[in-house]
Amino acid sequence: DTNQALQTITCHLDVDGSSPDTNHYGTMFGGKVMANIDDVAAIAATRHARTSVVTASIDSVDFLHPIREGQSVCLEAFVVWTHGTAVKVFVKVVAEEMLTGERTVCATSFVTFVTLDVNGEKKIVPGVIPEIELEKLLYDEAPERAKKRMAKRAASKSLAEKFGTGTP
Amino acid sequence: DTNQALQTITCHLDVDGSSPDTNHYGTMFGGKVMANIDDVAAIAATRHARTSVVTASIDSVDFLHPIREGQSVCLEAFVVWTHGTAVKVFVKVVAEEMLTGERTVCATSFVTFVTLDVNGEKKIVPGVIPEIELEKLLYDEAPERAKKRMAKRAASKSLAEKFGTGTP
Amino acid sequence: DTNQALQTITCHLDVDGSSPDTNHYGTMFGGKVMANIDDVAAIAATRHARTSVVTASIDSVDFLHPIREGQSVCLEAFVVWTHGTAVKVFVKVVAEEMLTGERTVCATSFVTFVTLDVNGEKKIVPGVIPEIELEKLLYDEAPERAKKRMAKRAASKSLAEKFGTGTP
Amino acid sequence: DTNQALQTITCHLDVDGSSPDTNHYGTMFGGKVMANIDDVAAIAATRHARTSVVTASIDSVDFLHPIREGQSVCLEAFVVWTHGTAVKVFVKVVAEEMLTGERTVCATSFVTFVTLDVNGEKKIVPGVIPEIELEKLLYDEAPERAKKRMAKRAASKSLAEKFGTGTP
Amino acid sequence: DTNQALQTITCHLDVDGSSPDTNHYGTMFGGKVMANIDDVAAIAATRHARTSVVTASIDSVDFLHPIREGQSVCLEAFVVWTHGTAVKVFVKVVAEEMLTGERTVCATSFVTFVTLDVNGEKKIVPGVIPEIELEKLLYDEAPERAKKRMAKRAASKSLAEKFGTGTP
Amino acid sequence: DTNQALQTITCHLDVDGSSPDTNHYGTMFGGKVMANIDDVAAIAATRHARTSVVTASIDSVDFLHPIREGQSVCLEAFVVWTHGTAVKVFVKVVAEEMLTGERTVCATSFVTFVTLDVNGEKKIVPGVIPEIELEKLLYDEAPERAKKRMAKRAASKSLAEKFGTGTP
Repeated sequence: DTNQALQTITCHLDVDGSSPDTNHYGTMFGGKVMANIDDVAAIAATRHARTSVVTASIDSVDFLHPIREGQSVCLEAFVVWTHGTAVKVFVKVVAEEMLTGERTVCATSFVTFVTLDVNGEKKIVPGVIPEIELEKLLYDEAPERAKKRMAKRAASKSLAEKFGTGTP
Repeated sequence: DTNQALQTITCHLDVDGSSPDTNHYGTMFGGKVMANIDDVAAIAATRHARTSVVTASIDSVDFLHPIREGQSVCLEAFVVWTHGTAVKVFVKVVAEEMLTGERTVCATSFVTFVTLDVNGEKKIVPGVIPEIELEKLLYDEAPERAKKRMAKRAASKSLAEKFGTGTP
Repeated sequence: DTNQALQTITCHLDVDGSSPDTNHYGTMFGGKVMANIDDVAAIAATRHARTSVVTASIDSVDFLHPIREGQSVCLEAFVVWTHGTAVKVFVKVVAEEMLTGERTVCATSFVTFVTLDVNGEKKIVPGVIPEIELEKLLYDEAPERAKKRMAKRAASKSLAEKFGTGTP
Repeated sequence: DTNQALQTITCHLDVDGSSPDTNHYGTMFGGKVMANIDDVAAIAATRHARTSVVTASIDSVDFLHPIREGQSVCLEAFVVWTHGTAVKVFVKVVAEEMLTGERTVCATSFVTFVTLDVNGEKKIVPGVIPEIELEKLLYDEAPERAKKRMAKRAASKSLAEKFGTGTP
Repeated sequence: DTNQALQTITCHLDVDGSSPDTNHYGTMFGGKVMANIDDVAAIAATRHARTSVVTASIDSVDFLHPIREGQSVCLEAFVVWTHGTAVKVFVKVVAEEMLTGERTVCATSFVTFVTLDVNGEKKIVPGVIPEIELEKLLYDEAPERAKKRMAKRAASKSLAEKFGTGTP
Repeated sequence: DTNQALQTITCHLDVDGSSPDTNHYGTMFGGKVMANIDDVAAIAATRHARTSVVTASIDSVDFLHPIREGQSVCLEAFVVWTHGTAVKVFVKVVAEEMLTGERTVCATSFVTFVTLDVNGEKKIVPGVIPEIELEKLLYDEAPERAKKRMAKRAASKSLAEKFGTGTP
């Protein structure tokens, strides 16, 4: 079972230097950008799977350009690949200078969700059919990316066990 | 120039299933956890460098256990390693079941900051002297981790350029 | 001077029955929807005028369908018409049932902005060239709508004077 | 069945130029004012009907004067008229310059609520007995206003159908 | 120099069991009530002094009755007494059961502000002339209350010095 | 039944002059500090009692030093004393100048909670065994403090009755 069309969604947020989302330099906090990435990715994943999802992992995010006061932020997400109960979503964060229209890619990320059905059991999600070139690129890289992700998760688990729950 | 003591800070947040930070299942949103990780790491980095910092990258986060209603969340951060103007911070997220005291490591992450001085120029930060075994472990792994981080940032930049600022 | 393409933007917000934006029945507050309408319309107006804008009036909003828990909200805005320093934006609010994909138009509204330039002086904004049928429909109706708007504003002003600033 | 006394309530909010409710010019967002209007009107309607209510429509709001930093905002609401299950509330927004005491009417609005009883069935609300001159003025105009409101709602519904749920 | 009329203000907030302001039992957090007390008292003090003020101390608050879901909260504040640059405000917190109209006093508090002028220097504030019996009662008790307040502040300062800034 | 170790928790919050928590002078609102005090004290009380608690009273807070922009705030709480179903918590608020590391005690407070069990019945809480000198100091003063607290609560109740629920 596959869905023909990739689900894309966009979310625009106006950045204001006097908002609690920005630091002293009028640039958006990295953590706030991450929270937005998770929000928009969750909607893309739910639209594809048409079932409830929870975040399993958020990939590393490099802040290529700061998001500054006077810009609006546009997040675009689409489902790259699915595997069993997992939905992998790609998110692109674009900032637009409101007075000139100049746009910059500030960050990209991959977020993995696991689907849940109403009784708490996991549900197999439909596959995706990539259409344009970049979708195909990410689709083809997805299994390798997933493998690395699983290795990283195992390392993360092992690190968590080493540290335990006490104060370091 | 080095600082003898690692800076640790902790932040407790009570999780409430009826708060905007939780989903329908009463578990905290992944993006919200990420935002908290960035907050607490920024304080640890600033305390070490005693200068303003901005987030350069947040490492991938695996959600090993969901953070559920009725738990409090404890984030602990300390500076692992510094290199030039970069400060690398390790963050551990522990959930505590409030009625029993049972504690679980829910996630770990590495956040990299770049220091800024008052005139916008970058400032070289003091090194760290790891003391206990786990600090030494992370300190020793840090250069290799940083190298991988730079490679990942380059890949992220290249991906951003491929996609451009238009809709995918 | 005119802009060929209408500026459209979309904003997705997930509705959660346990959020502060919803009432006891799990439906989104009317006032919260209004605030979102103003946000998204301001971005559309700024993109068209490429100058700062302030809200002059928000048209009446009829809540045709409640926005319920488990739906995501999509607001779409585009510039309908401009006149001197005024930019009129049309906003459509669509709710999507996340588990089925069913979509409903919950409300529509017109928001009027006045442009400001950097020195506080007003700037004449470029006109719009409607392209598809519905854009043409709203464009043709716009002057009549603006006339009614001015009459309503005068009535509003007169009412404000009658009441004065004391307690009614 | 009627209530002798009109229900009035007031709500004071301090405007701070560094709050997320204000734009770059230190003036309160139009959408934020709308949200406050809905909040205060809902309490007035509930107090009159002593049953739960949901917003059916918010009338157009003209921003006669901006609400600026250093002012406090006072919203006053009272029930103007009722008809079957509908409660019509008038809201006046007054800004007060905190250091001088000067007060200005910034906006007025009418909000219509529909009552709901505990089982979801609608409840007939008591009538109102206007006492002072301005209350009588609004009471007398109310039926005509309601008629226009119904016509506007029908037009809004028809427009929503024309546009459908797709992207414009 | 005195002001004839006491400044009273009221603020209504609807309590919702699903809001971040309430705990698992659907009652408003004590700390949230305190924050509201400070807000409303600051407006009363500013209106009386017509100059900027900062909170010097908030008196102890006893929560006589919990504020529950389905109630609205009404805070009323008026200036009780002034002395040099200090303004003492009394705040009463009343909860109203929305479906019945039953009202309960949930808490009372005294908040002391210190005035500041534009250059940071303190300004002598006008006195108050109590009019009704309860105002007179609080006015007469005020000097004794202020004396106790000063003693408590000294004890608080001494305790702070004993503890120092390290971890207890 | 007693607990050997006092429960201490800490919470760091970065103060930003452009946040909604600060006034025009870039200092944190007194009411916001109170809300944080209640939050952190509630976690300490719950950890000690391992049962749900509600705030019974918050002691007066003297703001010895303002909390300013560029500082982080550290709240530390520990259980001082218990009596029947009551848990008394001491809270110390320390501000740290981020660029220098200088720390100041800004406020101290005592918060009293009452425990609740799952069926709404109150539960007797374990006692505390003070260990270090300052803990012993507060422990020894606790019964006298509690007696004054009860007298103050009675006075507060009597005042509430005098004022009633009408407008002053």
